[in-house]
Amino acid sequence: MTLLVAGSVGLDTVETPHGSTEEELGGSAVYFAFAAAHFSPVRLVAVVGRDFPPGCLERLGRQPIDLAGLRQVEGATFRWHGVYEGRMAQARTLDVQMNVLGTCPPDLPAGYADSRYVFLANGPPAGQMQVLAQLEEPTFVMADTMNYYIENERDALLEIVGRVDAMIMNDAEALQLSGRPNLLAAARWVCRRGPAYCVIKKGEHGALLRGPEGAFVLPGFPHEGVVDPTGAGDAFAGGLMGHLAGRDDLAPQTMKFALAYGTVAASFAIEQFGPKGLEDLTARDVEARLAEFIGSTHLFTQ
Amino acid sequence: MTLLVAGSVGLDTVETPHGSTEEELGGSAVYFAFAAAHFSPVRLVAVVGRDFPPGCLERLGRQPIDLAGLRQVEGATFRWHGVYEGRMAQARTLDVQMNVLGTCPPDLPAGYADSRYVFLANGPPAGQMQVLAQLEEPTFVMADTMNYYIENERDALLEIVGRVDAMIMNDAEALQLSGRPNLLAAARWVCRRGPAYCVIKKGEHGALLRGPEGAFVLPGFPHEGVVDPTGAGDAFAGGLMGHLAGRDDLAPQTMKFALAYGTVAASFAIEQFGPKGLEDLTARDVEARLAEFIGSTHLFTQ
Repeated sequence: MTLLVAGSVGLDTVETPHGSTEEELGGSAVYFAFAAAHFSPVRLVAVVGRDFPPGCLERLGRQPIDLAGLRQVEGATFRWHGVYEGRMAQARTLDVQMNVLGTCPPDLPAGYADSRYVFLANGPPAGQMQVLAQLEEPTFVMADTMNYYIENERDALLEIVGRVDAMIMNDAEALQLSGRPNLLAAARWVCRRGPAYCVIKKGEHGALLRGPEGAFVLPGFPHEGVVDPTGAGDAFAGGLMGHLAGRDDLAPQTMKFALAYGTVAASFAIEQFGPKGLEDLTARDVEARLAEFIGSTHLFTQ
Repeated sequence: MTLLVAGSVGLDTVETPHGSTEEELGGSAVYFAFAAAHFSPVRLVAVVGRDFPPGCLERLGRQPIDLAGLRQVEGATFRWHGVYEGRMAQARTLDVQMNVLGTCPPDLPAGYADSRYVFLANGPPAGQMQVLAQLEEPTFVMADTMNYYIENERDALLEIVGRVDAMIMNDAEALQLSGRPNLLAAARWVCRRGPAYCVIKKGEHGALLRGPEGAFVLPGFPHEGVVDPTGAGDAFAGGLMGHLAGRDDLAPQTMKFALAYGTVAASFAIEQFGPKGLEDLTARDVEARLAEFIGSTHLFTQ
């Protein structure tokens, strides 16, 4: 089933205790698309500048990722420079250059309006709303957000919350948005404002899903080989939405496995700098990692 | 199979956002014993003062807890006063009165030397070593510790590490003891120093077990009704060790379920002030909670 992501495509410079990378292909839509493409073809909506390297376009084009919605406009591509230290729980941003990101309204190409599964990556609520307005009859829309919009664009963000089928955010953001003291209460708070589902990402500690059937929790994949956490959250969303779109199903059991495939996708994303850990995977790699995850987190293996 | 705990019995005064309790029965050996007693009879080794309330003795005596090792000596009972704020992730200690705790060597009563499963609750390594020295041929000894001994009695603590079958500690302590940047590496570091198993407690995020078969991780029980986190870690150890002693088995599958029963025990402990949440449980309550835990954290329920 059609799966669309609207988000950022950029060039990342990242330092971690394990090394560094410069002007690497990055951005929320990139990590999402590389993860989701293992489960379903992806339509990518984003904007880059004239300086966007042809090699990066080729990397995206090698996957089942439709680039009709990737507009290249006058100006420079979005750039982010961050550093992870110590336990790498959080990035410290050294520099952000928005450049063309945010200067262009997120216009969907003709033919994308019929997209059925849609991920609104973290970004200004107004832009997320613009994408929503161009969709005809989506089956399942999930939106991400971050502390900046929770603090500075709360009303517009709550309008998004009221319009989508699922919100996804990290633990600190869920507590901040809801003002609740624990994650289950925060997820319930979010669901009361509209979405049937709320997904809370807990980094190395896994993720929590709240839906009509109650709460479901998975631990993170036990991983010693974390090289670069950049994009883990978007890869998680990509695995999750990719599985839903691939199955075209929202049954409780499908949602649970979607959470597991998100976990698996994130576990690959963090093994290498940039999205490389996601690019060369086979379906067999994904299934083997899922089996490994189940073996190390489940009391029985079916 | 015989299960012994050597630890503290005291009187706790605790404040949380949900209320408070004064001079409530507490201490590591109490929470451990109340949890473990649902799986196996428990031998409790600890010391209290002349002021220890008879009502507390009666509460312990109502369970299959052998109190021959609970010595009552001249002086006052150990007291702790702590407060949990906000998300209740950590207690702030307002007052500690050691009193008789630590003044008496942990002597095992005649007949306890044959104990097969043994929990050395958090305490001075010298005291833990004294208990170890009195054991004839234990099958499985697990020791807990804390930041104070990691900082101030590192050598003595590492001797304990080298003598037991399992270490258990919380995440911050594991990182501190090992100097490693992540929990899997920390657990591996601990196991290299002797114990076949290392258990790392992650509070609301669950627990990690490392053993000869590799790593196994369970999330915490998804719980909105946390009233008082006091004793959760000792209740966890009690459920874990109780299951092992009850089964008298260390097979990988038994270890995994032990981690799950520890999680279940902790989930009951935090629902009420003091150990009350553990006292009135039936075996049916425990199994129902385990089924609920599996249902909300496993992709399939067997």
